[in-house]
Amino acid sequence: MSDKRAIGIFDSGVGGLTVVKELMRQLPHEDIVYLGDTARVPYGTKSRQTIIRFSVENALFLLKHNVKLIVVACNSSSSVALAQLKRNFKVPIIGVIKPGAMDALKVTRNNRIGVIGTSATIRSKAYQKHILKGNRSAKVFTQSCPLFVPLAEEGWAGKDVTADIVKDYLLPLKKKSPDTLILGCTHYPLLKKGIKKFMGKGVDLIDSAMSTAKSVKQLISDNSLATPKNSNGKSCFFVTDETTQFKKIGEKFLGRRLSLVKKVKNGL
Amino acid sequence: MSDKRAIGIFDSGVGGLTVVKELMRQLPHEDIVYLGDTARVPYGTKSRQTIIRFSVENALFLLKHNVKLIVVACNSSSSVALAQLKRNFKVPIIGVIKPGAMDALKVTRNNRIGVIGTSATIRSKAYQKHILKGNRSAKVFTQSCPLFVPLAEEGWAGKDVTADIVKDYLLPLKKKSPDTLILGCTHYPLLKKGIKKFMGKGVDLIDSAMSTAKSVKQLISDNSLATPKNSNGKSCFFVTDETTQFKKIGEKFLGRRLSLVKKVKNGL
Repeated sequence: MSDKRAIGIFDSGVGGLTVVKELMRQLPHEDIVYLGDTARVPYGTKSRQTIIRFSVENALFLLKHNVKLIVVACNSSSSVALAQLKRNFKVPIIGVIKPGAMDALKVTRNNRIGVIGTSATIRSKAYQKHILKGNRSAKVFTQSCPLFVPLAEEGWAGKDVTADIVKDYLLPLKKKSPDTLILGCTHYPLLKKGIKKFMGKGVDLIDSAMSTAKSVKQLISDNSLATPKNSNGKSCFFVTDETTQFKKIGEKFLGRRLSLVKKVKNGL
Repeated sequence: MSDKRAIGIFDSGVGGLTVVKELMRQLPHEDIVYLGDTARVPYGTKSRQTIIRFSVENALFLLKHNVKLIVVACNSSSSVALAQLKRNFKVPIIGVIKPGAMDALKVTRNNRIGVIGTSATIRSKAYQKHILKGNRSAKVFTQSCPLFVPLAEEGWAGKDVTADIVKDYLLPLKKKSPDTLILGCTHYPLLKKGIKKFMGKGVDLIDSAMSTAKSVKQLISDNSLATPKNSNGKSCFFVTDETTQFKKIGEKFLGRRLSLVKKVKNGL
């Protein structure tokens, strides 16, 4: 059995392209349809109900493009909307939380795991739930870092002021001595160097993009959803705001040129 | 002649309440209908076309509530969408840019004026245009400060790191020796103290909220639009995301309790 339909993937903006990058590497024959809701970004500062509404609209958009499964690349959406999406829709839906949590459990030696993310992600306790389901005796320490997204988008990763803010947010977490830290937002890998430097060599950073792509590969194999094609997959990208800014920042996230980007009126 | 209909006012979020506060003080008998597009905030990082679309939707929402004029309290909307709104709609429409620019020209002694704002506001050159229309020999120096909004919303006005970021953004501007600085974003008054401290005593800060309320008062008088009521006006507030967060932050901006806040599905 095989399925030549595309993989659908959405994010609040550009950050989900880190997941696309991994999908392209691990599943090079699959077609990909990406939706970035750049007109309404960010999600992580908004309420649970609004994030659910936007996520349902994004999923409906992808289903119109006849996708065979949906990857929720946004941590905030995955944290608060995944259950609702799974209840609503028939296609398999996969978020970034569980894969990240499972990888953290594999990596940790002292079972002390830190999680950083947006306000919505941290408030939802989604990472804790998955980590504790995997290991009841694990200790989870969380911190929301609302300034990390604007700092990453401003391109200030290397500035002194960013190091100060990293310290401000992460000092209480560091004091709990975790040996593993989940970067629970697709923007945070852009600040990886500074975070790693502050947390120290003994702390492993988990980037959910890689974990999620592995889970998608497994899901495709388990459900016989692999494309029959042997040629390289095609990708097309949709955004709800203008394409220029998305292309510019997106190419940094994706590590290659973004050619097919189209603006659509909104999530629906 | 008189007109008992309400004044309509919209903003991308909560910042426009600084204008409401001034309207309540200067025009206490007028009713006010406010719309904060909190589900799609911020506007200042989005494209011109998207800001125009959101602004038109917000104006249509206010018109459904039978308002006699519309105040565009958002600097980003005022900068890029005001002309389009004026072309589309019959009611008088007033933005925050012209009043702020006019007040800066009144205050300056050396005709060197600084303007800070979001990327959309600065890119539009709207303040320059109005300042130079008023005085061709004025010199205008601008700087976008994308991190000021998240810093204000995080409540970090008093932190050392905020002082560092203020310095980072404003040092090139300070070197141009302006004697007047327009705070071209409704969030920036929350960082006023730090901005004033860095710019020095010789620099006057212009807060458009006050200037705009004065212009609304004038417009109401010029067009015989004042309410015939002698009792205090009523205000109602609509938001597109949940009301809880808006109420919490909004009361800081407004300086009084926010009772009538309702969630509406979107701008339309």
